[in-house]
Amino acid sequence: MQKINSEAPVCDLGFSEKHEAIQPEALKIASKSRRRSSAASTCSFSSACFTGSSDEDDISPREKRQCNTKGFTDFCVKNVTNQHAFGRREIEIAEQEMPGILTLRRRAGDDKPLKDANIVGCTHINAQTAVLIETLIKLGASVRWAACNIYSTQGIVEESITGVHRLYHMSKTGKLSVPAINVNDSVTKMKFDNFYSIRESILDSLKRATDVLFGGKQVVVCGYGDVGKGCAKGLRAQGCVVYVTEIDPICALQASMDGFRVVKLNEVIRTMDIVVTATGNKHVVTRDHMDRLKHGCIVCNMGHSNSEIDINSLHSPELAWERVRSQVDHIFWPDGKMMVLLAEGRLVNLSCSTIPSFVVSVTASAQALALIELYNAVPGRYKTDVYLLPKKMDEYVASLHLPTFDAHLTELTDEQAKYLGLNKAGPFKPNYYRY
Amino acid sequence: MQKINSEAPVCDLGFSEKHEAIQPEALKIASKSRRRSSAASTCSFSSACFTGSSDEDDISPREKRQCNTKGFTDFCVKNVTNQHAFGRREIEIAEQEMPGILTLRRRAGDDKPLKDANIVGCTHINAQTAVLIETLIKLGASVRWAACNIYSTQGIVEESITGVHRLYHMSKTGKLSVPAINVNDSVTKMKFDNFYSIRESILDSLKRATDVLFGGKQVVVCGYGDVGKGCAKGLRAQGCVVYVTEIDPICALQASMDGFRVVKLNEVIRTMDIVVTATGNKHVVTRDHMDRLKHGCIVCNMGHSNSEIDINSLHSPELAWERVRSQVDHIFWPDGKMMVLLAEGRLVNLSCSTIPSFVVSVTASAQALALIELYNAVPGRYKTDVYLLPKKMDEYVASLHLPTFDAHLTELTDEQAKYLGLNKAGPFKPNYYRY
Amino acid sequence: MQKINSEAPVCDLGFSEKHEAIQPEALKIASKSRRRSSAASTCSFSSACFTGSSDEDDISPREKRQCNTKGFTDFCVKNVTNQHAFGRREIEIAEQEMPGILTLRRRAGDDKPLKDANIVGCTHINAQTAVLIETLIKLGASVRWAACNIYSTQGIVEESITGVHRLYHMSKTGKLSVPAINVNDSVTKMKFDNFYSIRESILDSLKRATDVLFGGKQVVVCGYGDVGKGCAKGLRAQGCVVYVTEIDPICALQASMDGFRVVKLNEVIRTMDIVVTATGNKHVVTRDHMDRLKHGCIVCNMGHSNSEIDINSLHSPELAWERVRSQVDHIFWPDGKMMVLLAEGRLVNLSCSTIPSFVVSVTASAQALALIELYNAVPGRYKTDVYLLPKKMDEYVASLHLPTFDAHLTELTDEQAKYLGLNKAGPFKPNYYRY
Amino acid sequence: MQKINSEAPVCDLGFSEKHEAIQPEALKIASKSRRRSSAASTCSFSSACFTGSSDEDDISPREKRQCNTKGFTDFCVKNVTNQHAFGRREIEIAEQEMPGILTLRRRAGDDKPLKDANIVGCTHINAQTAVLIETLIKLGASVRWAACNIYSTQGIVEESITGVHRLYHMSKTGKLSVPAINVNDSVTKMKFDNFYSIRESILDSLKRATDVLFGGKQVVVCGYGDVGKGCAKGLRAQGCVVYVTEIDPICALQASMDGFRVVKLNEVIRTMDIVVTATGNKHVVTRDHMDRLKHGCIVCNMGHSNSEIDINSLHSPELAWERVRSQVDHIFWPDGKMMVLLAEGRLVNLSCSTIPSFVVSVTASAQALALIELYNAVPGRYKTDVYLLPKKMDEYVASLHLPTFDAHLTELTDEQAKYLGLNKAGPFKPNYYRY
Repeated sequence: MQKINSEAPVCDLGFSEKHEAIQPEALKIASKSRRRSSAASTCSFSSACFTGSSDEDDISPREKRQCNTKGFTDFCVKNVTNQHAFGRREIEIAEQEMPGILTLRRRAGDDKPLKDANIVGCTHINAQTAVLIETLIKLGASVRWAACNIYSTQGIVEESITGVHRLYHMSKTGKLSVPAINVNDSVTKMKFDNFYSIRESILDSLKRATDVLFGGKQVVVCGYGDVGKGCAKGLRAQGCVVYVTEIDPICALQASMDGFRVVKLNEVIRTMDIVVTATGNKHVVTRDHMDRLKHGCIVCNMGHSNSEIDINSLHSPELAWERVRSQVDHIFWPDGKMMVLLAEGRLVNLSCSTIPSFVVSVTASAQALALIELYNAVPGRYKTDVYLLPKKMDEYVASLHLPTFDAHLTELTDEQAKYLGLNKAGPFKPNYYRY
Repeated sequence: MQKINSEAPVCDLGFSEKHEAIQPEALKIASKSRRRSSAASTCSFSSACFTGSSDEDDISPREKRQCNTKGFTDFCVKNVTNQHAFGRREIEIAEQEMPGILTLRRRAGDDKPLKDANIVGCTHINAQTAVLIETLIKLGASVRWAACNIYSTQGIVEESITGVHRLYHMSKTGKLSVPAINVNDSVTKMKFDNFYSIRESILDSLKRATDVLFGGKQVVVCGYGDVGKGCAKGLRAQGCVVYVTEIDPICALQASMDGFRVVKLNEVIRTMDIVVTATGNKHVVTRDHMDRLKHGCIVCNMGHSNSEIDINSLHSPELAWERVRSQVDHIFWPDGKMMVLLAEGRLVNLSCSTIPSFVVSVTASAQALALIELYNAVPGRYKTDVYLLPKKMDEYVASLHLPTFDAHLTELTDEQAKYLGLNKAGPFKPNYYRY
Repeated sequence: MQKINSEAPVCDLGFSEKHEAIQPEALKIASKSRRRSSAASTCSFSSACFTGSSDEDDISPREKRQCNTKGFTDFCVKNVTNQHAFGRREIEIAEQEMPGILTLRRRAGDDKPLKDANIVGCTHINAQTAVLIETLIKLGASVRWAACNIYSTQGIVEESITGVHRLYHMSKTGKLSVPAINVNDSVTKMKFDNFYSIRESILDSLKRATDVLFGGKQVVVCGYGDVGKGCAKGLRAQGCVVYVTEIDPICALQASMDGFRVVKLNEVIRTMDIVVTATGNKHVVTRDHMDRLKHGCIVCNMGHSNSEIDINSLHSPELAWERVRSQVDHIFWPDGKMMVLLAEGRLVNLSCSTIPSFVVSVTASAQALALIELYNAVPGRYKTDVYLLPKKMDEYVASLHLPTFDAHLTELTDEQAKYLGLNKAGPFKPNYYRY
Repeated sequence: MQKINSEAPVCDLGFSEKHEAIQPEALKIASKSRRRSSAASTCSFSSACFTGSSDEDDISPREKRQCNTKGFTDFCVKNVTNQHAFGRREIEIAEQEMPGILTLRRRAGDDKPLKDANIVGCTHINAQTAVLIETLIKLGASVRWAACNIYSTQGIVEESITGVHRLYHMSKTGKLSVPAINVNDSVTKMKFDNFYSIRESILDSLKRATDVLFGGKQVVVCGYGDVGKGCAKGLRAQGCVVYVTEIDPICALQASMDGFRVVKLNEVIRTMDIVVTATGNKHVVTRDHMDRLKHGCIVCNMGHSNSEIDINSLHSPELAWERVRSQVDHIFWPDGKMMVLLAEGRLVNLSCSTIPSFVVSVTASAQALALIELYNAVPGRYKTDVYLLPKKMDEYVASLHLPTFDAHLTELTDEQAKYLGLNKAGPFKPNYYRY
């Protein structure tokens, strides 16, 4: 996120990277999606069209003038004509599992709270992104979007926390020039994109990659934050014996009370069937650990970046790599011991499974609301700093998704609201509440 | 917590009530314990002795001069001589499950970080309280303690949150005259005294009171905060079908994702076998609800105060109350329908079960550390305001309790600490982290 | 079960012991209840009365002529007059949780399928037993009942399996003189009295006896039959780390697939917080094991008899026993190490908790149906052998208890019944089906 | 299984279909695998080779003479030369998760208990089958194998129970000419191929086919046998709200005690997100039910055959089918309501996921042991009837798989074995034991 010639507020959508501004005076959206992208080239995006990649056309879209159904030509997408129908179908399928963002689109569609806003975004582009973009347009905004180039943005998709770190760093060092909202740490983003989504995707990733039977397997989960909690609980419910490593005594005590043995990795490494990292740290699994793994152990990263497992140490002449299927390598030690490495140490849930559209809907709704908040705030409300998503908006994002579960909220009576000292419409909790 | 002629800092121990100051220039501790007390009379307490109540002696301890083994006479305890051995034994039993506070006593015993501090406290007094008091003494403090009179302090023991509310209110209205630490909202207090403890005590309370078989029973839990989460998960794991009511859409979405149906109470009230309140709110279960309960339904309060269930509405001539055993009333409607009310609507886990000493150890350790922090802080560090327990102390409390579980913490390497931008000794998380 | 001068069929109610026949030509019921009894003396029982024990009267009931409300005098119960109202109230409370046996009473009350049957039983007598007895009477039988004398029948209440063993032994050795039904191994008895009931009572027993906090505790469960499964799953759901020992490879594989580490006791004994036996075997926990326990470890028996833990080896001069509360002994080793022994090694769920009336209702219904079956069978249907409860009756017992859960059975269509080759009314499974 | 000119005993491997005998005087194996097959053509198989299908070669293998590495030519496999290396690699991968069958191969390899036996089998052929076949050869047998032709054997792979039904039918009608062992109902087959495997594959199947987020979804599972139990428990652990339908009151009571609401399908059909059938019955989900589904509901079959869902009723002009991806159809009602049908109503776990090799190892070991038992039994031991796998062999199969989990069995002492009346080597349970 670099300073440009603008003072437009910034909404950090929970995943960001360095990008070049395309349009001054814009609401900037710097985002690096956690989603698997079907788009692969760096190009800009505009309303009313979307496309996946195509191998059929050898001409670069940069060199070819195209025109969408509205006569619009200022975009750079491969094979719009051929892929349009497929893309629209994919968007429609995604919409079915994105009730929150669609409800927001419907409710706020008449008010046009983003009227005249110019929004520029940079993420991986897929059908779920398109649902967000079309919503922003429906709310009144003009939108341009740039895809992340997978070649120029190595260790990419997983850096959801990195953008936030950078914003706070810019804020501290005085380089932030506009107000920003940290969507990444909203409750709905954290709990749903992390715990609830991970509880499912850890299983899905391992199954799709290896067909392993979980029952009875011994697993160590490194880290017991929201992601580690999701991994540990998901795997135990399928019959795994799960151990946890932690550096933080509070999380370690939680793991203990949740019934997991808290160990150091080197204490258990010899007997594990599966090793999962979920720390956000680097070199959590070292070459020394891997030298001591038992034959056939599966090693994967659910945490952050591609540095939790020291992959470089495995690119060593005495070890033989064998690609047995996409995203799955067997690495052989000289004595015949074999380790199963998934996704070359990158995030396995991004490489080997999918992010459910419903989870993206939660995040996208928070993004859209953060944009609305920044764009409509009275002058001076937000200073040049990084803000958490207001509690009330976090609650609103949640409420948008309750009808999916046919969940019925109870309303406070006047007497109860007075007793609790709360507004009947919320917010209902202090900011430090931990859920 | 009222102003006295002092400016000593206040550590709110997570449960407080109005009390009269006994000793000027003291560190004041206003506390109302969540524990079942074996002491029943209002009296003061001093080091080296402790007693339970006794029915054997008709003379009020106020009118009788007693002397403890150290020749100390300025106390008011019934039958010190007779009960001393029993009390000491109870303290020893409690100590076995209070590893954290004992470790703190041992580690800080030489430093005497509370040297010359005068501490006065007011809580229910039982063996667990004695362990805290004896620890404070060991750390250098002079301590006097007053028990809560169970007659003068009706709806008492559960007001753990009330004290905090009052402190914040005093702070806002300028009535707070000393710095205070809100221990109630420390992570260790919240997660352990609430979620982990409740997950067990909801079962214990219902079983001891009613011998009900949980399997297959339909239960509605009103409120899905930490207490509600503990109730809902504990009961489901025993085979109950659990429904949840909520006013907060974020908690409601959590309940949905955890696999509970979120309903309004009136939608399910007719078919429930057990109704549990855990809201902190008032009149969550109304007479109208109770009129529609099915025969034999058990109703109890795990939340706060005694007002979650509208008990007053049940003291009505058309309803017949029958006390079937301690803490259990059968209330009959004119048509023969019967409802089982536990603890007359007061907190059932305090009335019908016990708080494990281990959980009290967590809370007591946080209390002692908060006192040490306030007493040793450099002047000006704490202003006249209400503070959360510093994250590092919260982590220290947790670390004191890990050896109980033979849990082994991993230490950051220098490289990792630098990568994460953390001190190797913690704190490890930002303040807004939700665990 | 000994031969008497009769050839009446025998229904083994799932718990039996040697008894003297009181009345010839009777349907004999030899039973030793798993329930905590409130009756304590050996005496006979007849219709229309029931009593608990009393300490108020020093005259033995054997020496005192009493008369019940119907003018009946041939019974031996302490203080019928004083205790009658209390007993009736206890029966009414028990009835509320015994829907199956009451439904059976109502449905078969007009048919009187036990008309003119003389039934004599011998069990511990409590309110739940009374509900069974009154049902048998309502179905037409004349009933006399003898209580087990707690002094003459040491290691008593738990011998539920013993009676069955003896019946099969009598059958093999030709000593069985009448047909018998083994109710103990009916599905409804096994799964409900064992797994589902135990899953709850293991928690209840440990909590009431010790107030232990389960979260994070390390537990070894010896044996993974239905009782061990109930213990292991109940404890894990409360946050315990559970290990299992087994002799049977099938059960061991089940434990593994359920996520429990299968170990030998001596491999883990040093680090356990709780040891639970559930094997039906003897000397599973030896003195050698106990010498190596860690300080404060709780040891209890959920299995069978009082011999699973080698208690005799603890009555040794170098060990000091201290009774700290009812059913709880602290045993001290010379080095100060202490072990917590519950119920002196007898069944802790009988000593320290209760058997829910609902579970007794399941068993009692099976008993009553077995009696009806034997009494009404066409001559020659049952030979002098031990039979399992007919599958259809097992299913009927289950169906009697479904309304409690508002459970709605689906009925086969004619087409479906034909397709499956089943009668629409059941039985629905082959005899070897394992549920 | 039809009579041929032989009296060789038959081992029904748990899945059978009509087949033509290829070789007289053979041990016949009639089997229809539950595994996804990579082989597609009807052909015979011999030792030392294996192949998958290939699209590269247009010449039918029937018309082409091939020769394997041993000079053997009497087989009919497409592209042996090209596919050999791939096939061998797949076999090696499968072997890593098939510890039991490999251990059996190693232990019994010297004894050659199947020496001179001629075995002919008929199943789908894949790498897992090859591991079984190569084991049989190692144990001394001569083996020929025929693949199931997917065109000639409609409603195929799922008929695991059908073969057993047919055997019992043949036995009753006097058409069975040789002894047979019913492997399908062995404990290890039932519990592992059904409950433990299904608990995982229900999640895997649904995820791979639809990417659905499980958390908060409402699901009805039709049937609560082992398969239904696996589905219900697996889905609940991922946050689904699960309802159960049942025809059998015992299973219904189990579902209730396990915390599931037991309902009739038509009571809940309007609000379900996912419908799973697991009954073994036909037309469990009717057109009438499907007319009332809510938009987007996923419907799939985990039970038996392809008739649990009345698919024929959906081939109707007013409904529009759209194939959205392999195994996934969207079916549209005239009002726009859409239902997601998986695998056209066939077994979704076979069509959309894989059977873990470990589970196949359990079943294959039981098959091999059954063959050994029949082949080596003293004359007259087995009459012309259908037998269950002897308990001791069932236990042996389990013991072969314990080392995978580093599970350590406890051995009975002499004293304990005597006390229990058991042989120290087993069997440990009566035949009616339900596990």
